[in-house]
Amino acid sequence: MVSRELTLARHPQGRLAVECFAIVERELGPIQNGQVLVRNLWTSVDASVLLRLRELGPEGYLPPFALGQPLIGLAVGEVCESRSPELAAGDLVTHIYGFRDYALVRPGGETLAGVGSLRRIRRDIGAPEDYLGALGHTGITAYVGLIAVAGLSPGDIVWVSAAAGGTGSVAAQIAKLRGHVVIGSAGSDDKVDYLLNELGLDAAFNYHHGDLRSLLRGSAPHGIDVYYDNVGGGHLEAALYELRNHGRVALCGAISGYDGEQTVGPRNMFQVVVKNLTLRGFRAGAHARLEDEAMQVIGEWLRQGQLKVRSTIYEGLERAPEAIVGLARGANIGKTLVRSIVT
Amino acid sequence: MVSRELTLARHPQGRLAVECFAIVERELGPIQNGQVLVRNLWTSVDASVLLRLRELGPEGYLPPFALGQPLIGLAVGEVCESRSPELAAGDLVTHIYGFRDYALVRPGGETLAGVGSLRRIRRDIGAPEDYLGALGHTGITAYVGLIAVAGLSPGDIVWVSAAAGGTGSVAAQIAKLRGHVVIGSAGSDDKVDYLLNELGLDAAFNYHHGDLRSLLRGSAPHGIDVYYDNVGGGHLEAALYELRNHGRVALCGAISGYDGEQTVGPRNMFQVVVKNLTLRGFRAGAHARLEDEAMQVIGEWLRQGQLKVRSTIYEGLERAPEAIVGLARGANIGKTLVRSIVT
Repeated sequence: MVSRELTLARHPQGRLAVECFAIVERELGPIQNGQVLVRNLWTSVDASVLLRLRELGPEGYLPPFALGQPLIGLAVGEVCESRSPELAAGDLVTHIYGFRDYALVRPGGETLAGVGSLRRIRRDIGAPEDYLGALGHTGITAYVGLIAVAGLSPGDIVWVSAAAGGTGSVAAQIAKLRGHVVIGSAGSDDKVDYLLNELGLDAAFNYHHGDLRSLLRGSAPHGIDVYYDNVGGGHLEAALYELRNHGRVALCGAISGYDGEQTVGPRNMFQVVVKNLTLRGFRAGAHARLEDEAMQVIGEWLRQGQLKVRSTIYEGLERAPEAIVGLARGANIGKTLVRSIVT
Repeated sequence: MVSRELTLARHPQGRLAVECFAIVERELGPIQNGQVLVRNLWTSVDASVLLRLRELGPEGYLPPFALGQPLIGLAVGEVCESRSPELAAGDLVTHIYGFRDYALVRPGGETLAGVGSLRRIRRDIGAPEDYLGALGHTGITAYVGLIAVAGLSPGDIVWVSAAAGGTGSVAAQIAKLRGHVVIGSAGSDDKVDYLLNELGLDAAFNYHHGDLRSLLRGSAPHGIDVYYDNVGGGHLEAALYELRNHGRVALCGAISGYDGEQTVGPRNMFQVVVKNLTLRGFRAGAHARLEDEAMQVIGEWLRQGQLKVRSTIYEGLERAPEAIVGLARGANIGKTLVRSIVT
């Protein structure tokens, strides 16, 4: 059987461009005992993909993609054929072999740093693609970062950067649903409009509209207690200045450095000393014991319509390069998804 | 009564120099009810003084010293005359009005960010000057940073920077006494010799002798779990690379930026995400509940001769400028002290 897959044709030089990718056809070998054949429905386009496109990725992270090899990413698909006793044809599953039409997957097989092992998903809580967003790794990352990593406590004022993105939009809503004053930031006026008028945040700003610290202070005149950091660099520096005593930062990502830009470290780390601040980095996989709790809480909010999901959807595998470049350029609102159209 | 005091004659331009200071005579007013007159014996020369010499100090920190006003610093002295029911002539006390011959002090009066309120000290545990070092704020800072802030746990490999300094030398010894593998770094071969041969650390290096990260890796080939940071800048960056998963940093200070040097932020904050690291800044005053415990544990080690104290002593108030400049240049081993010689 022939399956199309997205490969890295060349490493980006300077800014990422769609020419770095290619779609190639590959003959899938015959299904083995223990495997299932999955037809992909949705692929999640995550910031983590951006970190694996350059020849030299961040130390200690997942290795860069090899040229000519298919990309990997979290996906939802439907089992077409099963040689595993654990799954049956027709089951909906999540797994890590997105960015292709079909995949042969094995329960208990490869993961992305502990995330994304093949598992059946329910059909009654949300739409299949929600399992790549609020009901999946994205939601867990948002929940874990706020609750376990930042130790969200009553009365905390919360800033979420990249708040119109997949993870940020869920994190900002979780903080709102728990009764906090929430400030969101994003890189376009459309996104700020989304944060204020669709998500109902207390304040929001476009970080292109001036000095970050002044903008943050304008939105949070009394300072902040928790910063959910998706951006790093100057955003983190502004947060360190505006955090109050015993403030906390959950470092989830640093997308400001993902598209080949020079990474600048916060020059005001002494603020961490002066104000007894805590900065904690995390990968959601390190907090697996919170997964069930996160899914239960978020599932309930989704069912009740209290948590809103929004996605930017690219139709068809051939548009996956655009989806990835769009994510890198901050062009997308909500979760970035590629919908498979397999004929 | 006339008392000499150290004043800031001009703010440093570029590197700090002794010409920035002056010693002036001042008529002390008459002792008031509730006050005691203290003749100073020792003044502690702390990195915090360096942060208050420039016209513009770090945001959120103690304000810069005003020109012509006496400097303030932790001191040990003897009560000459008391108008307070809490203290009697002959009592040894600690207080915050160092850098002068005599001071009029009031119980419950001014502190340095919660530290250094006037209190009587015992004469049977250590020498008076130990109350400015291991038995005082320095010891508490070392203890709190390791135990409460870094959460020192069995098996942790510990790096202490500026390990030959007042706080660093106590922190490194505490970690050794608790059974850890301890690496120390310092800025001269004499200091490295002190760390290896007097304090018995497992490894030590002079950070001038090459690339910081390579030097650290040479001393800690399996990585580190805890970094006690007195330096900031490039030291912190090296630590973020060499910390293992779930590693912790106690940010105590950033002396690399105190002498007017350009402060550089760590450019590899993404390592904090990748390895689930925790960075916590602290001021010992925020952990006052641990003071008694710290003093008991450290006092016991001192009595048993297990914890060694060393100081660089400058004789006479007129040498206080040299002491401060010496601290800024990294010239001193152990605690930097000025001994008062009042005739």
